[in-house]
Amino acid sequence: MASVRRIGPSRLSPTRSRSVTYKGVVTTVATASTKVSSLYEQARDALAAIDRNLQEAGTDKSRILMVMAYLTDIARKPEFNRAWDEWVDRANLPLRACVSASLEGDDLVELVVTAAIDDPALG
Amino acid sequence: MASVRRIGPSRLSPTRSRSVTYKGVVTTVATASTKVSSLYEQARDALAAIDRNLQEAGTDKSRILMVMAYLTDIARKPEFNRAWDEWVDRANLPLRACVSASLEGDDLVELVVTAAIDDPALG
Amino acid sequence: MASVRRIGPSRLSPTRSRSVTYKGVVTTVATASTKVSSLYEQARDALAAIDRNLQEAGTDKSRILMVMAYLTDIARKPEFNRAWDEWVDRANLPLRACVSASLEGDDLVELVVTAAIDDPALG
Repeated sequence: MASVRRIGPSRLSPTRSRSVTYKGVVTTVATASTKVSSLYEQARDALAAIDRNLQEAGTDKSRILMVMAYLTDIARKPEFNRAWDEWVDRANLPLRACVSASLEGDDLVELVVTAAIDDPALG
Repeated sequence: MASVRRIGPSRLSPTRSRSVTYKGVVTTVATASTKVSSLYEQARDALAAIDRNLQEAGTDKSRILMVMAYLTDIARKPEFNRAWDEWVDRANLPLRACVSASLEGDDLVELVVTAAIDDPALG
Repeated sequence: MASVRRIGPSRLSPTRSRSVTYKGVVTTVATASTKVSSLYEQARDALAAIDRNLQEAGTDKSRILMVMAYLTDIARKPEFNRAWDEWVDRANLPLRACVSASLEGDDLVELVVTAAIDDPALG
C-alpha cells in the first residue's frame, strides 16, 4: 500500500493539511500571508509560500506540474502575470490555468500546485 | 498499459462517469442529492455522497488526498467548515481549497475529491 | 527520478507549458481559439484543441480521466452539454465537473483535462 504523507496542518486551519504527497506527487495550496490590496504583492507572497511548501516536501519550482490560480478579479490578471513571469523557472515551465473566483476575506489570489517529488519507495 | 477504471455513469448524466480510478488514485465528484437552502445540510449530504463514492471505489476518507470545494457563496464558508469539521478524519487531514463559483440549479456546493486506493496491479 | 515532460510553450503565453506529462498522466489546458459569442461553438473549439493536445502527448480522448470545465455563464451550461455529448467517447466516459468562473477577455469556456498515457519507462 503506497503511503500518503501529510504535512501540516495548514497555517489557516487545524482540520486541513498544508501539503499532501503520494506516489511522487505533492499537492499544496497557498494564499498570501499578508492581505495587502495589491494583487501583484499578494501573488508574490503566495508564490513564495508555494516555494516554502515545495521545499518542505522535498522539491522545488523546477519540478512543478501545474498551477491552478484563482483570482478574485480577472481584470487584474496582468498583475498576476507580472509576478508569475518574475517567479517562474523558464527552463521548466509549469502548466497553468487562471480563473476568477470569490475568495475568503481579503484574499485576492489562491494557488493550488502539484509538483513532482523523488519517491525512493518507487525507485 | 495501466488501466483506467470508470465507475458510473454519474447519477446526474449518462455521459459522465461518477468516479475514475488510475494508478492508485480515484477522482470523484459530488453535489448534494437534496437541494435544501442550508449550505450546512448540502455540505453534509455532498460529503456523504463522497463517502459512498469512495467506498464504491475501494477506499475511504482516511486516504483522501485533496478536496476542492466550490461554494456558491463564500460568505457562507463557515457553514461548510462546520460540516467539514464534523466529517473529516482528524488523523488523516486532507489538503483542501475552497473557492466561490456559480453552480447549476440550486446546488450550493460541489466537491471534487482525489483519494489513494490500493492498486494490486502496482504491488 | 521520474521525468517531467513539458510540451509547449502555450500558444497563449511563453511562460507556461501547453501540456505536462508525468508518470503516465498528461495534464493540459485549452480555451477556444476563436472567441465567438456562441458557447456551443467555443466549447466545440476548445474540445478540439484538447484532442490536438492529447494527440501531441501520445494519447486521445478514450483515455481521459477528468475534465474540469469553467464556464463564464452557468445558465448556458446546456450549450456546453450539447458540445460535450457530441464529442465524448461514450465507451470511455470521463469524470467531469463544471462550475462558473470569470475568464479572461472573450473566453466563455476553459478546460483543464487529465488523461492516461502509456509510459514506457514505467513498463
